Amino acid sequence: MAATCYGLTDISMRPIVQEVEELQNKILQMGGLVENSIRNSIQSLVTQDEQMATDVLRSEDRINQLDIEIDEFATRLLALHQPVARDLRFATAAIKINSDLERMGDLASNIARHSISFMERSSARNLVDIPRMSKTVQAMVRDSLDALARHDEALARSVLVSDDIVDDLKDSVYQELLGMLEAGTAPPAPAFDLMFIAHNLERIADHATNIAEDVLFLTKGMDVRHNRAQ
Amino acid sequence: MAATCYGLTDISMRPIVQEVEELQNKILQMGGLVENSIRNSIQSLVTQDEQMATDVLRSEDRINQLDIEIDEFATRLLALHQPVARDLRFATAAIKINSDLERMGDLASNIARHSISFMERSSARNLVDIPRMSKTVQAMVRDSLDALARHDEALARSVLVSDDIVDDLKDSVYQELLGMLEAGTAPPAPAFDLMFIAHNLERIADHATNIAEDVLFLTKGMDVRHNRAQ
Repeated sequence: MAATCYGLTDISMRPIVQEVEELQNKILQMGGLVENSIRNSIQSLVTQDEQMATDVLRSEDRINQLDIEIDEFATRLLALHQPVARDLRFATAAIKINSDLERMGDLASNIARHSISFMERSSARNLVDIPRMSKTVQAMVRDSLDALARHDEALARSVLVSDDIVDDLKDSVYQELLGMLEAGTAPPAPAFDLMFIAHNLERIADHATNIAEDVLFLTKGMDVRHNRAQ
Repeated sequence: MAATCYGLTDISMRPIVQEVEELQNKILQMGGLVENSIRNSIQSLVTQDEQMATDVLRSEDRINQLDIEIDEFATRLLALHQPVARDLRFATAAIKINSDLERMGDLASNIARHSISFMERSSARNLVDIPRMSKTVQAMVRDSLDALARHDEALARSVLVSDDIVDDLKDSVYQELLGMLEAGTAPPAPAFDLMFIAHNLERIADHATNIAEDVLFLTKGMDVRHNRAQ
């Protein structure tokens, strides 16, 4: 039977090792798109570039499309290859990592929206600790995806440690903004925008942490959620 | 072989219909715990009951434990029964719904933390539109779980419609709080708490929407994410 169309029959004839590799590549492709969105959403705020923020919002469609594609691919892999052991763990982890990445894309869009709102409501350049916070978060996202690509347990563990640093940075952003509001040295509306941007960055870090936990589950077969020793 | 211990061999001997039913029951049990946490987190704010908020934080452990149990149960079901068609869709949907519920539990804990902080920082009783917003969100959560239990497509659809109402209510809470801050009629710190409570409620509604979309996927076999006609 010639494989003239790409369908269920087609995929089932390919060896599972190839399917798992393709699933991983799709996840990493999704990861690349999401990393771009996060970087550009913050860059738009730092450089006051409204067009860049609008481009982030536009890239949501492609991310959402890949989200559905990856879910379907993983489900089809489960149905047709009925994997066991490591491949089964990878397919179920892929479904969760995909959902984390899709939400990180949403959070980057939220940042882009608040970046536009901040530009429109304020000429202030004081972004408090947000640029530093975003550098740490972007490194966490990159490291969690590199850890997945290279099955690198030590790198995945380093992501878990960084999550605490991000929580501290977020608290310091809140305190600084609150202090400025209480002293009357910042108008409330743009301060709200910066606070939500910090909040969205913290949530992106949480999702990078979820991915790192899934990588540890894959490499070690252990579940570190909700009970991690660092 | 007598089933003296509950292990892999044991589960594989039970018919898949029974396993799927047990998985659904576990999800609904998790849903019940999460519903309680959401209701009590808001109730603690309305009645200024710090103990109730602390109890919400304490119930996180049980929710996190069930999260891991359900993931393991679903993965084991996939491994041992290698389900196809509807059962396969249900097992993969269960992994996603479980992750949504776990996050809703986290968000209820966030609300409880802000409720405690609000009580400590303010004797104000003006909760703006938050009680009304929380009623709508709680109904969405209940309906999404009822839709799952009864495979009720119409009820799942109604959840998608309510999500827009919640977004509007959140915007009105923000505008009201911003107006009070700009007029200097509210201190910033408790206003921040209320704003984050509204934000967490909105995110709970998003997760209820995800569950409703998964129910539609299960009942109709269609994917309504990212492209829904209402």
